[in-house]
Amino acid sequence: MDNDDLRRGKPTNHKVYGEDVAVLAGDALLSFAFEHLTVSTVGVPPARIISAVGELAKSIGAEGLVAGQVVDIGSEGASDVGLERLEFIHVHKTAALLEGAVVLGAIIGGGTDDEVERLRKFARYIGLLFQVVDDILDVTKTSQELGKTAGKDLVADKTTYPKLLGLEKSREFAEKLNKDAQDQLSGFDPEKAAPLIALANYIAYRQN
Amino acid sequence: MDNDDLRRGKPTNHKVYGEDVAVLAGDALLSFAFEHLTVSTVGVPPARIISAVGELAKSIGAEGLVAGQVVDIGSEGASDVGLERLEFIHVHKTAALLEGAVVLGAIIGGGTDDEVERLRKFARYIGLLFQVVDDILDVTKTSQELGKTAGKDLVADKTTYPKLLGLEKSREFAEKLNKDAQDQLSGFDPEKAAPLIALANYIAYRQN
Repeated sequence: MDNDDLRRGKPTNHKVYGEDVAVLAGDALLSFAFEHLTVSTVGVPPARIISAVGELAKSIGAEGLVAGQVVDIGSEGASDVGLERLEFIHVHKTAALLEGAVVLGAIIGGGTDDEVERLRKFARYIGLLFQVVDDILDVTKTSQELGKTAGKDLVADKTTYPKLLGLEKSREFAEKLNKDAQDQLSGFDPEKAAPLIALANYIAYRQN
Repeated sequence: MDNDDLRRGKPTNHKVYGEDVAVLAGDALLSFAFEHLTVSTVGVPPARIISAVGELAKSIGAEGLVAGQVVDIGSEGASDVGLERLEFIHVHKTAALLEGAVVLGAIIGGGTDDEVERLRKFARYIGLLFQVVDDILDVTKTSQELGKTAGKDLVADKTTYPKLLGLEKSREFAEKLNKDAQDQLSGFDPEKAAPLIALANYIAYRQN
């Protein structure tokens, strides 16, 4: 994605094969996600597969990932990015695909509408949590600790949660997001919910 | 797609909004195709919708449009492009989406496997036919007649059917493709097949 990849000797697709081929590879992989979902899913009622395709498409398109990416591009170098726009960007850019991954599992597994919606909220909270923690790590860790360049957001003058809220309030916000996420899981079988709780805590307490 | 669009005062997406946003618009539209197919198709058995999603994905991805585009890019400026590679490019770049459009209708409409396969062949023939005719028009018509720049393929030193086969044999090939296409329709209700026959003839005999 960035110079870190190059520094670690991992040149990205568009550097090796050119931007045209990289864009086409993206299109092919995007299509393949839908092909795989429909061709390789066995033993699942067709109506669920159809619902999953619709969900996946929505999480990528103009109401999902692409919306976040476009607003992010449009906000580059802007000094007036407030909390609302920052949250919009992260909820769409980062959380939407996480939401898709969780919700698809819930749909394919036969969750009720209510269960699907609670898992959707769970995923949205941990998606945003991931980004808040990322912002915090960028200003509190060294490059060596992170395994990638620290302090990049400051250098790029990027709007982040620490910049808007300060470090302490960002940490409180992260705690709240983790709690809100795990609250969504309260009605589920604790044994089945355990991996999701572990995932939320992993995202909240990761050090790089 | 090219300078013709600019000449006619129709600037393309990437010129107006930048390449990054144009790529994202493509991703959003690609996803929306699958969203629309699954969310907006009513009164059709789910198994057919799933089959249609798989077909659409395949026609776009690494075995479809993208394959043709990548080989086309890799052949730019190459002097050794023979008939086989030229056909591969056109069958994938042009015919695959036409094939998808026809086959999706056949699947959604409840065609038998045999009917779907015959319509697939029909679409592939007229897709290739479209390209052969395009190559012929480029060397036989004026820019005014075409409504776009004539002789572009020669200027770009592009491999075309007239270049490989000569004009006369290219015309014979086009005739054969049109006949082969229409042969596939012989088993269908003539009234229902009429629009497809008209489409094949339109592609074969168009003058611009």
